[in-house]
Amino acid sequence: MKFNFLYPVVQKDIEAIEVELKQAVSNADAETTSASALHLLEAGGKRIRPMFVCLTARLGEPKDFSLVRDAAVAIELIHMASIVHDDVVDDAELRRGRQTIKAIWGNHIAMYTGDFLFAKSLEYMTKIDNIKAHQMLSAVTVELAVGEIEQIKDKFNFNQSVRSYLRRIKRKTALLIAASSGLGGILADLPDKMDDQLYLFGYYVGMAFQITDDILDFMATERVLGKPAGEDLRQGNITLPVFFAMRDPLLKKRISRVTEDSTDEEITHLVDAIKASGAIEESEQVATAYLKKAMAILDTFPSSKEIKPLKQIVKMLDKREY
Amino acid sequence: MKFNFLYPVVQKDIEAIEVELKQAVSNADAETTSASALHLLEAGGKRIRPMFVCLTARLGEPKDFSLVRDAAVAIELIHMASIVHDDVVDDAELRRGRQTIKAIWGNHIAMYTGDFLFAKSLEYMTKIDNIKAHQMLSAVTVELAVGEIEQIKDKFNFNQSVRSYLRRIKRKTALLIAASSGLGGILADLPDKMDDQLYLFGYYVGMAFQITDDILDFMATERVLGKPAGEDLRQGNITLPVFFAMRDPLLKKRISRVTEDSTDEEITHLVDAIKASGAIEESEQVATAYLKKAMAILDTFPSSKEIKPLKQIVKMLDKREY
Repeated sequence: MKFNFLYPVVQKDIEAIEVELKQAVSNADAETTSASALHLLEAGGKRIRPMFVCLTARLGEPKDFSLVRDAAVAIELIHMASIVHDDVVDDAELRRGRQTIKAIWGNHIAMYTGDFLFAKSLEYMTKIDNIKAHQMLSAVTVELAVGEIEQIKDKFNFNQSVRSYLRRIKRKTALLIAASSGLGGILADLPDKMDDQLYLFGYYVGMAFQITDDILDFMATERVLGKPAGEDLRQGNITLPVFFAMRDPLLKKRISRVTEDSTDEEITHLVDAIKASGAIEESEQVATAYLKKAMAILDTFPSSKEIKPLKQIVKMLDKREY
Repeated sequence: MKFNFLYPVVQKDIEAIEVELKQAVSNADAETTSASALHLLEAGGKRIRPMFVCLTARLGEPKDFSLVRDAAVAIELIHMASIVHDDVVDDAELRRGRQTIKAIWGNHIAMYTGDFLFAKSLEYMTKIDNIKAHQMLSAVTVELAVGEIEQIKDKFNFNQSVRSYLRRIKRKTALLIAASSGLGGILADLPDKMDDQLYLFGYYVGMAFQITDDILDFMATERVLGKPAGEDLRQGNITLPVFFAMRDPLLKKRISRVTEDSTDEEITHLVDAIKASGAIEESEQVATAYLKKAMAILDTFPSSKEIKPLKQIVKMLDKREY
């Protein structure tokens, strides 16, 4: 899903950020580091986080827009770092249809490539002389790591609460998108109250974004996902559709039998049963509810050519299929 | 090796930092994260990096010493993060005589515990409103990751240059110690020239520190090291003693045959041959030369009760045996 064609206002920013991202990971003194990081960069991505930084910043009048782009680059580098480490833990061979860093260079290089990307993000953040921005980003980064650890701990735990799932996706995904959106406001010197609203907007979008990802893991084909369907369940990651499906005691009994040794056939049968249970539709409703809350926040802002693309993104995220 | 008994001036700082480190990694909302991070913290360590931050800061008159301690905590957290990731790559079961995080919780939790510690270090750095401090630390952190990747790439490469070894230990170890020492100066508002000298002082100490570690890997017993001797060679990490030993063509031939499949007996024989070759003594001379350069920098500072403990540390590091 590419969003940027929608709004020329942000096209230039995104192009500048792509150039800067490439420069950030290029290091003549460290061939392997550069090669693995560039590989990931070239796999592309929605760049939704840098887009939010730029779009929310344009709601105000940032003194120096190049700093907004630096913040956008920093956030995308943090996101990229977390992706690389995710792929190690998920033992993922494919991401966006391309081989992962861990598949090509192995787990150890992948781990340090993540560290490198994370460290690089700091270099970009050092340019930004704003304590609130730094506090927001460091707090979110801590939660990101905690979320990943909790996810590992909760694997194959079929008696966890929906609350623990929501807290996990908040930490893993929603907070970084919240920070992307909040950061733009901060750098544009918007009033604190508006920054907080933009942060909350990003949080709602982020929750919907992850829930939709979790739905797509059941619904999409391997061709679209760039990875096999049902992968979350196979890994023991209990996501929202599974919680809804498990309200049926018989289905819960079957799902609870999933282990690391479950066969592809068993997983496929369960995926079909979960899809037939209505759990997907219920999960979609939750995602839509979050997006509605996000939209309600945007509605409190005066209409402008800057608010429009944000609204368009929210609309496109509703029931996205890829 | 505990240094702090030497100088009451720093005793109070180190105690405060220990308390703060414990607080930093405690997180009621994230049991597993806290438990693994606390486990590492309780294994102890020399705390040489925070000590350098505090001691060099005392060469000037920092406005707010609590910020110096925050920086010291941040640096130690970065060091701890790199240790946890190191142990994953080295597949290390023991560190300082205790089980490693990866041994108890596995590689995945260890990877994210490192991420968590690194992110936590940012939280402490955000308190410090000094762009030079941030730039120094982010640059060093990038080099740290690059150094680790280059080390993996150069494993079992017996034709690499000594220069690549020196560059690697600079990135892996010396620069963070340089930053520890430079940071104190920056936070104490010393003149830029003195900050640079303190950074260089830390760099020299760091180079000596790593070379000595690499020597100890050959010389110390398992009881003292808390891990088996000859481990670097077994892992394919070519360190300074090996370079000196490889100047003997016959020994080079034998060493070059080391692979991941070499037996304990083969490694033990090689360790003995390297020790008998004079390579250890030559390596010690290099470490001592670095420490002399470090001492020469301290000699340019006026004698004071603050400079004395730094000189004592340099003396203690020369030919340390543990």
